[in-house]
Amino acid sequence: VFQVKWAAAQAEKNGFDHFMLKEIHEQPRALKDTLSGRLAADGSGVQLPEITLAPEKIKSIRKIFITACGTAYHAGLVGKQVIEKLARIPVEVDIASEFRYRQPLIDQDTLVLVISQSGETADTLAALREAKRLGAEVVAVTNVVDSSIAREADHVLYTWAGPEIAVASTKAYTTQLVAMYLIALHLGALRGTVSPAETRQIVTELKKLGDKAHVILNNCKAIKDFAADCSRCEDVFFIGRGLDHAVALEGSLKLKEISYVHAEAYAAGELKHGTLALIEEGVPVVALTTQQSLFEKTVSNIKEVKAREAKVVAVAMDGLKEVSKVADHVIFIPNTHPILAPVLTVIPLQLLAYHTAVARGCDVDRPRNLAKSVTVE
Amino acid sequence: VFQVKWAAAQAEKNGFDHFMLKEIHEQPRALKDTLSGRLAADGSGVQLPEITLAPEKIKSIRKIFITACGTAYHAGLVGKQVIEKLARIPVEVDIASEFRYRQPLIDQDTLVLVISQSGETADTLAALREAKRLGAEVVAVTNVVDSSIAREADHVLYTWAGPEIAVASTKAYTTQLVAMYLIALHLGALRGTVSPAETRQIVTELKKLGDKAHVILNNCKAIKDFAADCSRCEDVFFIGRGLDHAVALEGSLKLKEISYVHAEAYAAGELKHGTLALIEEGVPVVALTTQQSLFEKTVSNIKEVKAREAKVVAVAMDGLKEVSKVADHVIFIPNTHPILAPVLTVIPLQLLAYHTAVARGCDVDRPRNLAKSVTVE
Repeated sequence: VFQVKWAAAQAEKNGFDHFMLKEIHEQPRALKDTLSGRLAADGSGVQLPEITLAPEKIKSIRKIFITACGTAYHAGLVGKQVIEKLARIPVEVDIASEFRYRQPLIDQDTLVLVISQSGETADTLAALREAKRLGAEVVAVTNVVDSSIAREADHVLYTWAGPEIAVASTKAYTTQLVAMYLIALHLGALRGTVSPAETRQIVTELKKLGDKAHVILNNCKAIKDFAADCSRCEDVFFIGRGLDHAVALEGSLKLKEISYVHAEAYAAGELKHGTLALIEEGVPVVALTTQQSLFEKTVSNIKEVKAREAKVVAVAMDGLKEVSKVADHVIFIPNTHPILAPVLTVIPLQLLAYHTAVARGCDVDRPRNLAKSVTVE
Repeated sequence: VFQVKWAAAQAEKNGFDHFMLKEIHEQPRALKDTLSGRLAADGSGVQLPEITLAPEKIKSIRKIFITACGTAYHAGLVGKQVIEKLARIPVEVDIASEFRYRQPLIDQDTLVLVISQSGETADTLAALREAKRLGAEVVAVTNVVDSSIAREADHVLYTWAGPEIAVASTKAYTTQLVAMYLIALHLGALRGTVSPAETRQIVTELKKLGDKAHVILNNCKAIKDFAADCSRCEDVFFIGRGLDHAVALEGSLKLKEISYVHAEAYAAGELKHGTLALIEEGVPVVALTTQQSLFEKTVSNIKEVKAREAKVVAVAMDGLKEVSKVADHVIFIPNTHPILAPVLTVIPLQLLAYHTAVARGCDVDRPRNLAKSVTVE
């Protein structure tokens, strides 16, 4: 008799060593599922029947709050930039445990978005209740059908990431980003702030994201090499500007959570105002530079850390080849609409965290001190 | 002949070992000077003739942006909370190197505050110009008369901190905080959002801040002891909620800048969403808990890190004695109006950074890689 040695849990991992790695690799599918049925067949826009805000209501929105915790908060930081750009509504992103206690300035012209993978995050649920008490309509983005947050929100946009088992969130994050694009396009269309041509361009690129994610997953040797370097260090810095800054925060959180390396993310332009003092020979720096419009400025920040002999891996959009002249290694992500870059940029960072944690012998799926859903305050 | 052995520079240090320590000790005077002539003699409010915004203009403000870099940005984070509370105007704080490139949503009902000690910070100056180009009136808070930022702003509120020589900013920060209170009270009075009774209470307490700062400076043994612990560690965490979170960010920046310890600040409620993984036996945690309304929640976060055997020093407002039961050490600051706590809370953190850097043999006044004013981008 031939005995299969996989335990049941291993079988569920589909041949991957850890749930986290499996979930990272599920992203192409999760992205497609989350978009499924939500893009007009002719590519002209999005359709979100689950958000039943009246068009007049949408036109009257003067402020959006996004509130969430941890990784979902980082998705909100991308959401802010995307919604402000496409729908021209001021957005404020707030950590749920701060929002709920600080008497935010909210009225009936304020829309509140809450984001939570589990739909049970205690502080986010409390923030939702506070927002409703203050008279705001609440849209929830969550991955769990019929969760507390889904039940209590006025509108729910589900991410179709499928169950996420690893404590460190990966596919939940990228599908939350997709939700942000969908909401931004929806609001932008109804408010007339995004042109049909740009909408069409973004929708076309949204459809390709899954395949492009797949390309990155099949081409991650450089990041594995850099992970070997990171695994021998106790400090790693992530820098970026604009959308890249938001992704840098998420990349540093991943590394922290599962490898216990003290990673920290910085707006690249802030380095000179303090953190540069921590950069010395051999310190790994992950520099994100996907945006053409900010490229030159970020390259100049890479030069600053290189001048202090940091070891730099850059993540750049295909075509920004000049970065190879300043960084030690470059991971190129497939070209896409600049606004969509975060979905692809984060994937090498997830892999960096994963391989660093494995190299350090950490329990990847169940990091010390952390729980999957934080259902207590 | 008796020869005085002090060098000229030493003499300028007034007997202190470093400019930074001298400047920390100058805060009682700097606070008083910055308030001087700006509080109504009868304690009924503030008078800021340098801000000539018409009352109708002030009433029409629908949004305030605060933009700055480094320590001044941290002063802005306090400013946001203070202005929102007293003047009920939504405030967004943005790093100047981000603000200037992100096409912020600004119109003629937006007021922009820029903060810069030197008045020459390149990104802040560029942000000021961008704000003016977009049609906003700009109020500058700066320490240097006739600096570029002072010249180009529509209104200037000078901090009277006196020359700041040490790279790590101390008295400039606390006087920038005072500027935030003055502006918030000024706007609040003209908009009728702060009661005469509360105004009077805050003005009374503002007048006492200098003396209370002096009390803290004379009573810093516990922080010196904790600095000895920190000097042997490579990682230190700062936690707090609300205003304490803003101060935690500044405290961690000070430590980073001059002692090269990798310090990082967290909203206390976010710990469970990742950073708790980095807390292990003996890791120093500085927990700020000055606000009665958030006290219980922060104490529960202190318990979380204590459960992972962190070494905790708390900074608490006098009267919040319960914290002694959970923290290893407590620095009590004199009781004041809760909104003013940051001015006092930061002083032990400045001393912590100073003594840690001295214990590590660092060049306190001229940390590696950093310049006093960042006049390049």
